[in-house]
Amino acid sequence: MKKVSIGIDIGGTNVKLGLVDEKGSVLLNDTFLTKSASSKSQLLDKLVGHIEMLRAEANHRKLKLVGIGIGAPGAIDVEHGFVYFFPNIPGWENTPLKKILEKKLKLPVFVDNDANAMALGEFYFGAGKNVKHMIALTLGTGVGGGLVLDGKLFHGPAFSAAEIGHMVVDPDGPVCGCGNRGCIETFVGNGYFVKEVKRKLDSGEKSVLTRWLQEGKELSPKLVQEAARAGDRFAKEQWEITGERLGTFLAGLVNLLNPEKIVIGGGVALGGDLVLEPIRKAIKKKAFPIAARFVKVLPAVLSNDAGLVGAAALAFSGR
Amino acid sequence: MKKVSIGIDIGGTNVKLGLVDEKGSVLLNDTFLTKSASSKSQLLDKLVGHIEMLRAEANHRKLKLVGIGIGAPGAIDVEHGFVYFFPNIPGWENTPLKKILEKKLKLPVFVDNDANAMALGEFYFGAGKNVKHMIALTLGTGVGGGLVLDGKLFHGPAFSAAEIGHMVVDPDGPVCGCGNRGCIETFVGNGYFVKEVKRKLDSGEKSVLTRWLQEGKELSPKLVQEAARAGDRFAKEQWEITGERLGTFLAGLVNLLNPEKIVIGGGVALGGDLVLEPIRKAIKKKAFPIAARFVKVLPAVLSNDAGLVGAAALAFSGR
Repeated sequence: MKKVSIGIDIGGTNVKLGLVDEKGSVLLNDTFLTKSASSKSQLLDKLVGHIEMLRAEANHRKLKLVGIGIGAPGAIDVEHGFVYFFPNIPGWENTPLKKILEKKLKLPVFVDNDANAMALGEFYFGAGKNVKHMIALTLGTGVGGGLVLDGKLFHGPAFSAAEIGHMVVDPDGPVCGCGNRGCIETFVGNGYFVKEVKRKLDSGEKSVLTRWLQEGKELSPKLVQEAARAGDRFAKEQWEITGERLGTFLAGLVNLLNPEKIVIGGGVALGGDLVLEPIRKAIKKKAFPIAARFVKVLPAVLSNDAGLVGAAALAFSGR
Repeated sequence: MKKVSIGIDIGGTNVKLGLVDEKGSVLLNDTFLTKSASSKSQLLDKLVGHIEMLRAEANHRKLKLVGIGIGAPGAIDVEHGFVYFFPNIPGWENTPLKKILEKKLKLPVFVDNDANAMALGEFYFGAGKNVKHMIALTLGTGVGGGLVLDGKLFHGPAFSAAEIGHMVVDPDGPVCGCGNRGCIETFVGNGYFVKEVKRKLDSGEKSVLTRWLQEGKELSPKLVQEAARAGDRFAKEQWEITGERLGTFLAGLVNLLNPEKIVIGGGVALGGDLVLEPIRKAIKKKAFPIAARFVKVLPAVLSNDAGLVGAAALAFSGR
């Protein structure tokens, strides 16, 4: 009997659900607006309703449902599936989410933060397959990450580990959202990337991007990628600078953790080899040779469904 | 029957050995000059001879000898106790040290690099007791370290993890021995610390140190500590600056690994609370609150015997 799990990605805007098989394929998608529930108990009811629908579908298809995995941005006691708080969804302080759902559903439930879930998704189903030690990095608005050490997500004793974005790489650098100066997030997050490109264009750097912006296009990592692919020198350089900065930082992580793979996803990773090659070069040049030879830097392969597929992986892994 | 192990600390100058009990007390010390052996096979013979002497003593005292632990500066396959090379002792390339000694001694032998051994020593017997997740940092000429995660030394798949000293904290910083710019080692290693103090004194900073140096004393972290303890403002400031720099870096490690303890030893750590307080303050200010509240920053407690006691811990831990 083919095994499946239900992955749930709770975001501030959407809740995405999916019936996911052991290869990471989404057999059935489902979604609702987070704000369509006006309270925690309504959101719980909605979750249970949608899960029951997916469970019925699994039964109908003769699939064995092994459990539910939930990823959410927030502070979570992963061992007990206990939510300390969700920063973007009010009313969830100190909620024993695992306990509540297991009682209602009579199914194993696993809860983790979304960055860890995505890391586990890449580890189980994506670019991190076939290794035991992996660092995942998501370059979104912020810089999120997850650590897989010895084949398992590493949470740390207070479940707060893997905040890769908030390691200081320049004590005199720009102010970060977390209050510090010079976190790696302030150098390679989407926001900083776009701001830096804008600043340089405003100061007169020549690029096709200037015309594109005048034509009303919105500046984004994707647009800078398009310009670079079209051969624009300035755009290419921006990826190189970002890649070198990130690579210098990652060389330190390679020296610290000796990972087999570093998997990079999110907006800035759209640059593909434009940004990955400078990263690889910097690691090769700056990390210790043994560790540098050992590590592969790869783009993430799970894209739109990364959140729910990663959450599904939580259920398959039993954690 | 009381259990003991033999700890061996192989250095470029001395080989230190000791009969160590399960509390980390050294029951018997032994040592010889590394250069008194002119070849690898002579050094192996000497090791076996000294080990046999300690074993005889253990038997005589009715102690149960559980194994041998060896710490050495070098690149080692920890799983197989296989030495890739020792940077300071020629002729040891690709030596199956564990295999050779186990065959001769009929005792379990465990080999690791000295920084890891010292970390494990603090974890078993010293400031790291009673936790599962610990970062150890030795501020010597260089900056060494070890990671204890989930109660075990973390080596990484190529056994090159925990090179904490070589994480870049300022891409435009001073050139490091490893070839990079701005490794944490270039900011808080003994060498840099002494050089910075010297530079500032030469540029006219007022301090009792100027007179002490004129009187022929040698500038060292210990001397700067003495000046600070005597109330010298300049000397105190140097510890604060070093502590804040190190604390900012460690805040990032706290965000990454969520350790329960950070144990700091070596020359610069002689500053005691003069340097530890600014470290604690920086972590409290700059790391995420959950992780920052969780971590304790403590001075290492094993001093002269740290290397051999740590090596002995390798044998007790079975790794």
